Formats: sequence, structure tokens, C-alpha cells
Amino acid sequence: MGAIAMNSDTSAKIIDGKAVAKQIREEIAADISRMKEAIGVVPGLAVILVGSRKDSQTYVRNKKKACEGVGITSHEVHLPEDCTEEEVLRHISYFNSDPSVHGILVQLPLPRHMNEEKILNNVCIEKDVDGFHPLNIGRLAMQGREPLFVPCTPKGCMELLHRYGVEVKGKRAVVIGRSNIVGMPASLLLQRQNATISIVHSYTRNPEEITRQADIVISAAGVANLVRGSWIKPGAIVIDVGINPVDTDSTWAMPMMVVLANARLITPIGSGCLEQIDICYVRPFN
Amino acid sequence: MGAIAMNSDTSAKIIDGKAVAKQIREEIAADISRMKEAIGVVPGLAVILVGSRKDSQTYVRNKKKACEGVGITSHEVHLPEDCTEEEVLRHISYFNSDPSVHGILVQLPLPRHMNEEKILNNVCIEKDVDGFHPLNIGRLAMQGREPLFVPCTPKGCMELLHRYGVEVKGKRAVVIGRSNIVGMPASLLLQRQNATISIVHSYTRNPEEITRQADIVISAAGVANLVRGSWIKPGAIVIDVGINPVDTDSTWAMPMMVVLANARLITPIGSGCLEQIDICYVRPFN
Ligand SMILES: NC(=O)C1=CN([C@@H]2O[C@H](COP(=O)(O)OP(=O)(O)OC[C@H]3O[C@@H](n4cnc5c(N)ncnc54)[C@H](OP(=O)(O)O)[C@@H]3O)[C@@H](O)[C@H]2O)C=CC1
Ligand SMILES: NC(=O)C1=CN([C@@H]2O[C@H](COP(=O)(O)OP(=O)(O)OC[C@H]3O[C@@H](n4cnc5c(N)ncnc54)[C@H](OP(=O)(O)O)[C@@H]3O)[C@@H](O)[C@H]2O)C=CC1
Repeated sequence: MGAIAMNSDTSAKIIDGKAVAKQIREEIAADISRMKEAIGVVPGLAVILVGSRKDSQTYVRNKKKACEGVGITSHEVHLPEDCTEEEVLRHISYFNSDPSVHGILVQLPLPRHMNEEKILNNVCIEKDVDGFHPLNIGRLAMQGREPLFVPCTPKGCMELLHRYGVEVKGKRAVVIGRSNIVGMPASLLLQRQNATISIVHSYTRNPEEITRQADIVISAAGVANLVRGSWIKPGAIVIDVGINPVDTDSTWAMPMMVVLANARLITPIGSGCLEQIDICYVRPFN
Repeated sequence: MGAIAMNSDTSAKIIDGKAVAKQIREEIAADISRMKEAIGVVPGLAVILVGSRKDSQTYVRNKKKACEGVGITSHEVHLPEDCTEEEVLRHISYFNSDPSVHGILVQLPLPRHMNEEKILNNVCIEKDVDGFHPLNIGRLAMQGREPLFVPCTPKGCMELLHRYGVEVKGKRAVVIGRSNIVGMPASLLLQRQNATISIVHSYTRNPEEITRQADIVISAAGVANLVRGSWIKPGAIVIDVGINPVDTDSTWAMPMMVVLANARLITPIGSGCLEQIDICYVRPFN
């Protein structure tokens, strides 16, 4: 059965990440051109990539493209896998003091011989567009505090929910995964909007039962074929950020048909969601 | 029916917070006397109390007593309700630079005319024994990072679980309440020990249903009579940190009997749990 037949079998509306991305891109481009006119400045984003992981290279390329498309100047540094920590720190320090750079991204993961914590802590907090500094995460976790920046992937998920008119307040939300980059900040963001959150991770004994209670599922486990159709409550909203080398995308590539049959709104297999998320990287410059 | 009859009716073992507190106090006292012998220094704790809330006064008095009991020098400053923010900041700055003070506690809540965030951010991070600095909370939330200090009430809850041999890993844990002081850090601590957490708050639509799934419940809602016996799964472990003026303690003063009948292990109505928690304030000095 082909992809088209799959769609007509189901009731789920598929989230059009590309369309959302286009909309956001236009809004940002308009903001930036207004900014340029008003104060003569355009935002600058520096991206530091170490090594040659394919997925990292794709992310960096997409960020650069996203920047170009909206009028953000991008500065890219590509260092070899075996470069020293000091080299990375030198570049960070340079960008920290460059007034034409407003945001610095260090693409993760870094090679194993580097101290990720030390490197990220060196990005000055005002330029930490990734929002990975513990001070930012702390503010994200605390009531009455505001982070300077919010990690982009979870932010992208919230944008998708928001732009599709999904009310988060009072909903049961299950986040699968609790990484510093995706799962944990996603659950904090959902909670800030007054969802009731549960967090599923590798020690969770009954992930299926818990996930099936969710009105909103954000899946970021990085394990292929983990989420099955039976995990999804009929009518639930499902955002999948997982990408797995085995099948190019999606946590549930295989059981997608069954998931689709249950969900009300779901991100597609493919780059729609991803593209939307990449554009969110540049959003903090607003 | 009196308290004794109640007890014999039930299968729940009541957590003896006083005994745990005594044990911890002895351990700390021994540590401190070793420290004094070895390096000639004893820890010093400064407490700043503003205004005359009864509960705050009780907390501060208990902390002072706890310090005295184990050999920690305590420095107390009591300021009037209508003092200025600057006065509080002056005292913080003084303690920040006093080498005989190793920890600074600002008792919360502060009077409404003060900016709590600004005041807490002024406590230097190495002396933030309360662990309320966003940098500490961020580290608590992040995998692979370690907070310098952990907020004491949630830490006290974890100590109780630990000393009663409760395995947290893989358990379903529900935290009722998500305040910066109790609920939110409690859920982060449980998750760090690999529990699967759900967080119930005032927007949660079906708190009873969610709480009934929990193997471990930490209740910190600050609402009297919220948790009913029917909320507790048979065999669950229940830590109640709530204190309500209406009945001197406990979130579930009224339906206590029913809760008791279900729980396997539970903190008592009364000061047992509290006392244990107060002693945890001084624990970070170890
Ligand atoms: N779309 C985008 O823009 C982005 C997509 N991604 C993708 O999202 C996914 C997650 O990324 P990231 O968070 O960095 O990955 P991590 O590997 O850092 O985290 C994976 C999380 O999933 C949990 N997990 C692992 N196995 C299971 C299981 N069997 N059941 C339940 N939970 C499990 C882990 O739990 P534990 O903590 O217990 O180990 C961990 O919290 C990946 O596929 C990644 O490629 C990532 C970033 C951006
Ligand atoms: N034993 C000890 O050492 C200590 C005890 N305490 C006691 O613990 C309790 C909690 O303190 P604290 O966290 O500072 O209180 P807060 O008032 O700051 O927070 C209360 C939390 O409970 C939630 N809540 C309120 N009503 C309901 C409801 N009907 N159903 C579910 N959740 C609800 C609130 O949700 P929302 O966020 O949506 O408003 C909030 O997150 C108090 O009784 C306090 O006296 C506090 C500190 C130390």
C-alpha cells in the first residue's frame, strides 16, 4: 500500500511544517528589514561545527540557508574532528566580542575528547541562542522567570502546536525523551503553558500505557520504531522530532499507518517538521 | 476514634522523620567535629528573615536549633516587614564576603514590595545553600550536570525515601505542586534518580486519576484536604510536605485515615517530616 492510500485511510490531519516554516520565515524577514531600516543593523549568527557527522552537517547547512533566506548574516566555522578544545574556545571568545555577531551556536554533539559543558559555558549568555546554558535552563524551569533564549527544537514543537491552534493549558502531555536538548526543555515549555506533563525515558516501565493517556505527545527518543499506533489515544496530537539513520527519519516509520489512524494531528515522516524547527533557530533574533 | 485506634486499623508504616533527623544530625555532628580537628574550621550559616510571618519564624528558629545541635555557627538577621530592599542586599553583600559564613539563606516569602528574584540572585552561587539560584536549578534539570546545592525540602523528601530503602528508579512518581521551592525541584530530583514523573498542579483536570497511578507521591500543593484516600494506589509511598494554617499541618488532615489504609509508607501528620527536612538544610555543608 503506497503513501497516498495510507492517507485516505486515516482521519489524522498532517501538520504542514513547510507551510508553517514559510509563514515564520516571512514574518522574520519583514521584522529584519524593518530593523535594518530603523537602526541600520541586521542580526548575525555564528555557527561552530566540529567534525564531519552527517546529521550535524545537515543541521548546519539548513541553519545557514534559513539565515540567508531572511536576511541574517551567517558566520560559519568548520573545524576538524581532531582539533583541540582550545581552538573551539578561541573561536567562541572571538564571536563573544564581535558586535556583528548576536548569536552563537555550537553544533552538538562535540567530539568525545572535548568537554561539552566547559565549551557551552563559554558562550556568553546574551549570545546563547541555543538556550543550553544552565542559567537559561534554570529560568525556563522556574515560575516567574524568563529565559533569554529557548532551545530551538522544543520551541519549534510549541510553535507547531500554537500555529495549529492546539490549546495546551490543562492538557495531558507526554514527552518521550528527557535530553538536555529536546525532551527536558520540551516538557518545561509544555508545563509553562500549564499542561500536565509526564516524562517517559529509558527507565520507564510502561511507556505505552502512559503515552496513551496523552492529549499531546512529543516524541524525542531517538529510537526507531519505538512508538506504535497503540500508544496513541484517539484524537491525540503527535509531534515527532526523532530522526533515525536506519530509515532517514521518524521514530515510528514502520507503524506510521496505525499512528495516523489514531492521531488527530501529526507531524509527517519527512522534513516538514524539521524545516519548521530549523527556522525557529533564527526566531530569537526578533 | 483516636489516633491510636487509627493506626491499628491500617497497614501503612508511618515514616519516623524524627528518628531519621536524629540519625542525620549525628552524622553531621561527627563530620563537623572531624572537620574542626582536621582544618580548624566550622561551617557558618547566615539566615536573613524579613517580617514576622509565623511559619517563617518557625522555619528560621528550627534551622538555628538544628545548626546549634550539630556545631554549625549560625548568624541571624531579623529585619522589619517595612525595611527596604537595599537593607536586605546590604546584609547579603556583607555575608557574601564574610569568610566565616559558608551558606546564606534568605527566608521566603519576602514582603511584596521586594523583588525576590533580584535579592536571591545577589546571594553568591557558592553560598546559595537554598539552591534557588537559576544556575543551580538549571544544573539540577540537566543530565550530566551537578548542582552546587539542592533545595532542602525536596532533598529532605529524597532522604526519607532513601533512608527507608525505597527504590526510586523506574517507579511512577507524582508530584503535586510545581513551585520553585518544593514541587519543581522535587520532580527534577526524582527524575535524576530515574523515576518516571508526572506533575500535578492547579490546571490539572484529573489529579486523582493521575495520582492514583503513582508508586511514590510527593504532595506539596499547600491546599488543605486536597489529597483523598481514593487518590492513593494501594502500596504507594506518600510524602506530604504540606502545612496549612487551618489545621496546623498536612494536605490531607481530614481523610488521613483513608490515605493511611492505602499507603505502604507515609509521613505522619505532625512535625516528624518537617524536622527531618529542617536538618537537611545543614546537610550541604558536608
Ligand atoms: N528535529 C530536530 O530538529 C531535531 C531532532 N533531533 C532528533 O530527536 C531525537 C532525540 O534527540 P536527543 O534528545 O538529542 O537524543 P538523546 O539520545 O540525547 O536522548 C534520547 C532520549 O530518549 C530516551 N530513550 C531512549 N530509549 C528509550 C526507550 N526505549 N523508551 C523511552 N525513552 C527512551 C532516553 O532516555 P534516558 O535519558 O533514560 O537515556 C533519552 O532521554 C533524535 O532522533 C534526534 O536525531 C534532535 C535534535 C533536533
Ligand atoms: N515541610 C517543609 O519544610 C516545607 C513545607 N512547605 C509547605 O508545602 C506546601 C507547598 O509549598 P510551596 O510549594 O511553597 O507552595 P506554593 O503555593 O508556592 O505552590 C503550591 C503548588 O500547588 C499547586 N496547587 C494549588 N492548588 C492546587 C490544586 N487544587 N490541585 C493541584 N495543585 C494545586 C500550585 O499550582 P500552580 O503552580 O498551578 O499554581 C502550586 O504549584 C505548603 O503547604 C507549604 O507550607 C513549604 C516549604 C517547606
